[in-house]
Amino acid sequence: MSALEKLKAHSKKIHNFNHLSAICGWDQAAVMPSGGNQARSEAMAELSVHIHGLNTQPQLAEWFEQAESEDLSSQDRATLRELKRQWQQANVLPEDLVQAKSLAGSKCEHAWRTQRSDNDWQGFEKNWKEVVTLSREEAQIRAEASGLSPYDAMLDLYEPGVNTQSLNHLFNEVKSWLPDLINQVIDKQSSEQVIQPTGKFLASQQKALGLEVMKLLQFDFNHGRLDESMHPFCGGVPSDVRITTRYSESDFIQSLMGIVHETGHARYEQGLPKSLAGLPSGDSRSMGIHESQSLFFEMQVGRSDAFIQHLAKFAGEKFSEHNSDIFSQENFQKLYTRVKKDFIRVDADELTYPAHVILRYEIERDLINGTIEHTDVPDIWDQKMQQYLGLSTSGNYRNGCMQDIHWTDGAFGYFPSYTLGAMYAAQFMASMRKSVDVDAAISQADLSPIFTWLSDNIWSKGSLLTTDELVKQATGETLNAEHFKAHLKARYL
Amino acid sequence: MSALEKLKAHSKKIHNFNHLSAICGWDQAAVMPSGGNQARSEAMAELSVHIHGLNTQPQLAEWFEQAESEDLSSQDRATLRELKRQWQQANVLPEDLVQAKSLAGSKCEHAWRTQRSDNDWQGFEKNWKEVVTLSREEAQIRAEASGLSPYDAMLDLYEPGVNTQSLNHLFNEVKSWLPDLINQVIDKQSSEQVIQPTGKFLASQQKALGLEVMKLLQFDFNHGRLDESMHPFCGGVPSDVRITTRYSESDFIQSLMGIVHETGHARYEQGLPKSLAGLPSGDSRSMGIHESQSLFFEMQVGRSDAFIQHLAKFAGEKFSEHNSDIFSQENFQKLYTRVKKDFIRVDADELTYPAHVILRYEIERDLINGTIEHTDVPDIWDQKMQQYLGLSTSGNYRNGCMQDIHWTDGAFGYFPSYTLGAMYAAQFMASMRKSVDVDAAISQADLSPIFTWLSDNIWSKGSLLTTDELVKQATGETLNAEHFKAHLKARYL
Repeated sequence: MSALEKLKAHSKKIHNFNHLSAICGWDQAAVMPSGGNQARSEAMAELSVHIHGLNTQPQLAEWFEQAESEDLSSQDRATLRELKRQWQQANVLPEDLVQAKSLAGSKCEHAWRTQRSDNDWQGFEKNWKEVVTLSREEAQIRAEASGLSPYDAMLDLYEPGVNTQSLNHLFNEVKSWLPDLINQVIDKQSSEQVIQPTGKFLASQQKALGLEVMKLLQFDFNHGRLDESMHPFCGGVPSDVRITTRYSESDFIQSLMGIVHETGHARYEQGLPKSLAGLPSGDSRSMGIHESQSLFFEMQVGRSDAFIQHLAKFAGEKFSEHNSDIFSQENFQKLYTRVKKDFIRVDADELTYPAHVILRYEIERDLINGTIEHTDVPDIWDQKMQQYLGLSTSGNYRNGCMQDIHWTDGAFGYFPSYTLGAMYAAQFMASMRKSVDVDAAISQADLSPIFTWLSDNIWSKGSLLTTDELVKQATGETLNAEHFKAHLKARYL
Repeated sequence: MSALEKLKAHSKKIHNFNHLSAICGWDQAAVMPSGGNQARSEAMAELSVHIHGLNTQPQLAEWFEQAESEDLSSQDRATLRELKRQWQQANVLPEDLVQAKSLAGSKCEHAWRTQRSDNDWQGFEKNWKEVVTLSREEAQIRAEASGLSPYDAMLDLYEPGVNTQSLNHLFNEVKSWLPDLINQVIDKQSSEQVIQPTGKFLASQQKALGLEVMKLLQFDFNHGRLDESMHPFCGGVPSDVRITTRYSESDFIQSLMGIVHETGHARYEQGLPKSLAGLPSGDSRSMGIHESQSLFFEMQVGRSDAFIQHLAKFAGEKFSEHNSDIFSQENFQKLYTRVKKDFIRVDADELTYPAHVILRYEIERDLINGTIEHTDVPDIWDQKMQQYLGLSTSGNYRNGCMQDIHWTDGAFGYFPSYTLGAMYAAQFMASMRKSVDVDAAISQADLSPIFTWLSDNIWSKGSLLTTDELVKQATGETLNAEHFKAHLKARYL
């Protein structure tokens, strides 16, 4: 057995344990009664330790060295590259740092749950200091191992190949036109009338509606399910993808488009190359490309005129006891494209979302590189919020830098992926339109040509190509923010 | 750390992996789409290999030797006894035999699925020969290691302490009165009128009814769930017990009592001693005792007049559009106590069930001990079926020895547990009645006194006592079939 074959067999073993982790994690979020949590957490922790042990077995170093000099096909070369990337990332940190960061993150998050509603920055800051210190330490170690800057080394975890230089360039470009565009659109929309849904929308009917839309989007129900959880996600494994949503019975608008979003993630997973199952070269390319698929479904397809027409019709049939004016195509279009400056990223619309992401990117970049301190964050947040969205968060920590869980837990480096995903999605659509009559396909309720393009160009490629290669092969150029700008202007102006 | 502490820590590690196996196994049976099966099976097989590896680590032998000479509390002594029992059972068989038996079982089962409907004994016999040969080999090895006879060594896997001598005695006693009793009861019931449910009973309403009954039975929904699967079972872990049922929309009778049965299993699991979680001394005592709890719920409580009254009322309310005569207490009582001689064990009623079990016990005992051959089974089956139930299976293999999956897979030694469970349940009830007004508790819809008795005497004991000790402490005597006989006579004559 060649060294690469040994590495592949080892990878498949790890993949099998990750499978169990994914299913038990889905279970914990979607169906487990709360009394089962302690024993489950202990079992999941035991599994994590075991997987870590597999990732750090001493003989792997030797196998990697041997495999480098083996005569490999280009596909095997890509597999080796991705195997090595995963192995290096799993081995670079000393275990006591991983544990210390996990503990500090848990402590900070636990206290944050009450501190956020109390707007208690003073209390939060004390715990968060430790999280930031340990995250910087992590970034420093990753930087030394990779030759990148500290923040770039963190970016590399989520978006291999992306760096501060390219992000500064992309995001500065967006900043040059986004605030004005937001103002123009809000001004334009201010005179529009929108009918908000009122009354009760049964969860069971919302689910039936969601399943109908998933069918239109050709979700493969033989290899996946739709369930409910507090925080919607796409989990499971490629042969059995578990997406979840949350139903509010006073409003179906959000969960319906949430299902479209998660279906995008799911179809990417379902479309990954089966011949590479269990190998990292057969996994999704990056977080940004994953998000490009969910946003392609949600923003590019989901908010198109033709798709909105289907949604409005389906919903009108399902909720026939409600005021039918809600379900006119025009009203649905308005409901799904309303722009509003607000504090909370996760509730933001398509147009203001990038402003939230750029703000965070700029702050976390400087925080991890050590050019600002954690105590500077509230003021900088306030300044940038005023600059990008004209809102002040002075003294309003709970809706400012304390608003979500990610920094609390020490997850730095992945916020940019959201906006990269939106940009990739716009670029894929621009390119697809050259060969596919997208609107006709959606209108005719047979989206196969769209999915064939995505499968051929994105899904079936797994991680065989780098992100730049993938995007260039699919669209003829590397990432170009102009497509995103053109898309937003066409939709909102 | 003492050797026992090391063994305990190791046991908890194994327990954590068993937890993941239980949840992923539940998932596979209850919610997984079929397209996910291959990857799941591979992941589960990987986990089995890992658990086997943990059970057979070389240093365990030394720890057991050291622990034997440590100064232990009586509780720790029981923990050590159970740990050692599990360890010996996991280590006694050579791996190639385990694999060969698993392969032969899979092959035989796969072919059996069509052979059964084709009544193809000739085809089945060829595969089954290998299963029987390997099962005898297994029994021989277990016999040599334990000093028991081959079949007793297999019994010991499911019912430690039970042996051929005691079973012959018990079952011969039952055989001396059961066939006559069955005839008497059938004669008595022949003039009774029973109204069978007809029409449609929605699965969603049956589920609501099942949940209502589980509530009456004080199932802890913070530590468990009710779901659906092809074959009903009780799975999960003590802190999160997953029971399943299957709904037929043309009949609610079977699934309703099935839920009562599984709730009995579940409450035993939920009531196991939490301080011993993760140790075999904190596990359920044996398969027979487990079955005693499900049958206590299903037969002792579930078919009592007072409980039938609740069931009939609940069902009548839920299915109010149906003929109300179905839901009279008298009719419900008849529906749930109808006796019929028939071929299929899993469909058998309370009274004829032991006849099926005794028939199998006698055959598998002689087959494993080598006093009969596998080709003798159809004829012996026919003779015994005629003797115990007056039915001939001559040439009718599909409803004779090919009727279910257990022997096909090579699971010999556990059939007796079903009838042992029924006997224990009757004995527990007889004893409980001395201190608890069972009928009043059920009538008043507060079954707490019943569950307190079961918790004090059975559930909270885990595996700290041997089965004989457990039964003797609970009832003042070891297993005595007279209680079962008295129960059947009181109910059916």
